[in-house]
Amino acid sequence: MRKSAFFAALMLTASGLAACQPAASPPPPPVEPVSNIPAAPEGATPSVQDILAKSTPEEWRALDPENTLYMDFAPANGSPGGRVVIELAPDFAPNHVANIKTLSREGYFTNGAVTRVQDNYVTQWAQAAEPERAPKQGQKTLKAEFTRPHDTTVGFDVLPDPDTYAPEVGFSNGFPAARDKTSMWLVHCYGVVGAGRDNSDDSGGGTELYAINGVPPRGLDRNLTVVGRVIQGMELLSALPRGTEALGFYKTPAEYRRYADIKVAADVPADKRTDLEVLRTDSATFSTLVNSRRWRKDDFYHVPAGRIGLCNINVPFRPRQAS
Amino acid sequence: MRKSAFFAALMLTASGLAACQPAASPPPPPVEPVSNIPAAPEGATPSVQDILAKSTPEEWRALDPENTLYMDFAPANGSPGGRVVIELAPDFAPNHVANIKTLSREGYFTNGAVTRVQDNYVTQWAQAAEPERAPKQGQKTLKAEFTRPHDTTVGFDVLPDPDTYAPEVGFSNGFPAARDKTSMWLVHCYGVVGAGRDNSDDSGGGTELYAINGVPPRGLDRNLTVVGRVIQGMELLSALPRGTEALGFYKTPAEYRRYADIKVAADVPADKRTDLEVLRTDSATFSTLVNSRRWRKDDFYHVPAGRIGLCNINVPFRPRQAS
Repeated sequence: MRKSAFFAALMLTASGLAACQPAASPPPPPVEPVSNIPAAPEGATPSVQDILAKSTPEEWRALDPENTLYMDFAPANGSPGGRVVIELAPDFAPNHVANIKTLSREGYFTNGAVTRVQDNYVTQWAQAAEPERAPKQGQKTLKAEFTRPHDTTVGFDVLPDPDTYAPEVGFSNGFPAARDKTSMWLVHCYGVVGAGRDNSDDSGGGTELYAINGVPPRGLDRNLTVVGRVIQGMELLSALPRGTEALGFYKTPAEYRRYADIKVAADVPADKRTDLEVLRTDSATFSTLVNSRRWRKDDFYHVPAGRIGLCNINVPFRPRQAS
Repeated sequence: MRKSAFFAALMLTASGLAACQPAASPPPPPVEPVSNIPAAPEGATPSVQDILAKSTPEEWRALDPENTLYMDFAPANGSPGGRVVIELAPDFAPNHVANIKTLSREGYFTNGAVTRVQDNYVTQWAQAAEPERAPKQGQKTLKAEFTRPHDTTVGFDVLPDPDTYAPEVGFSNGFPAARDKTSMWLVHCYGVVGAGRDNSDDSGGGTELYAINGVPPRGLDRNLTVVGRVIQGMELLSALPRGTEALGFYKTPAEYRRYADIKVAADVPADKRTDLEVLRTDSATFSTLVNSRRWRKDDFYHVPAGRIGLCNINVPFRPRQAS
């Protein structure tokens, strides 16, 4: 069983590594003072439910079945079964997304397993066959897709609140994202899914994936290819027993949490789909929601923060409404 | 079973609340541009282990048994048993800390239970007796201890990196903390423990406690009394099944995860203690460690962030070394 894909470097010492390091990228520019945070709403802030009740149908978008994955678990070992719904991010990782779909369609993911759960870090899964089967049409490795050019062909709904790590953050079609003057990248918030790799940038491809289960490890941004995010069912990945080997790997295959398969939603019969829609992050209702959480003040909250962090914002979703 | 202690307001609508709100506190001042982040170390950054290997004994402090709690679980339902070690924060919540110790010493916590696990938010525990037993010497409620004055009688090791929520952050004797010109407060990072309350600020006291199990919900800062932080054993609280009632409460007592007791370490025989020491956050080794994580660049990390978030810093601990 290959256990080295993700963060193997943690186990190495620093001796002899300096010579093979690429040049450091320049540090991000300082965050500028923020002057454009919207003012506090008058009076008590409304609940999420009340805000969403006033949304219009056009402010929601259905998940695209061609860019949605279902990771289906059967009940086992006292854990409930269920479905993890993952939205893929072809705007940021087109080649990885295409490859993951190819891998799914050739059965590569069938009867795979969660092999690693490191507390406050990542839940990771892989084929877990012994010996590991090679992909057929799919690729084992791809060129990294850590960032994409900063351009206007994809959306970027700016969050004006200061961010510790990036000069500018916001949402790109619902995905937490960051950018500087030249690049854009997806951010490792809770539930964000990325492609595990070995030490080389180009050693991942989507055969091994992880989801963030704790404090957003923002140091991973621009070092890993983010391929999507969990929309629903994250608790099936976050509530698993932590592995007791180094880096949270399970000691033995007997501890693995097996999943039945990872399927592209479009390949699942319509009546077996989990048909969800997501609030558009460029909608007026989303802006209202973010500002009400930023200035939250109600029966329970008495001191509004006046700020909100990118990864503290949950983009609402719901079963798709009849149109 | 009282389920309303924490975040009951989430279930309320906003109607009729405006009249009873206290005046909003002023928003925090804008974060100023950061100019004092230390430069990147030369070459590859060393591992945590290598940095700690060079520390001196004086850079570590033993946990004080009078300000340490043990929350002991027996194995059950496939979950491992074990001990959660919590360091209390008397500098910030002296009355709550004293009350929690009194409650422990009168047996209030014996055979309590985790009653709520909300994914990416909080794990919460309570006495869970039916009917709930009243405290004897301990208090059910206390005046809130959300903040303390900004003064120099407690340490504050500044982290120069910009923070989304507070004008200044850092560590106060190992606790993640923030301050403005007048106040200091503890920050809701992963594993931080606070006192649940009802809607009134002064309705908590330590009979019901919670630990953060996901993205730091920084909007709670200055709205709840933080009483301590989990040093070891957080996985016993984070890997539990999520509750399926509103706010993550378990549906029935049969789902509760019972603990044997919560004891003050000083009340436990010396040979049954978990004798830990923590790296001082005012030590040179801690500064070196933080900067190496800020600029992490090694076999695996190729693009250093150049920044680090308060809640992304894990303060090292280890078994107490023979002196």
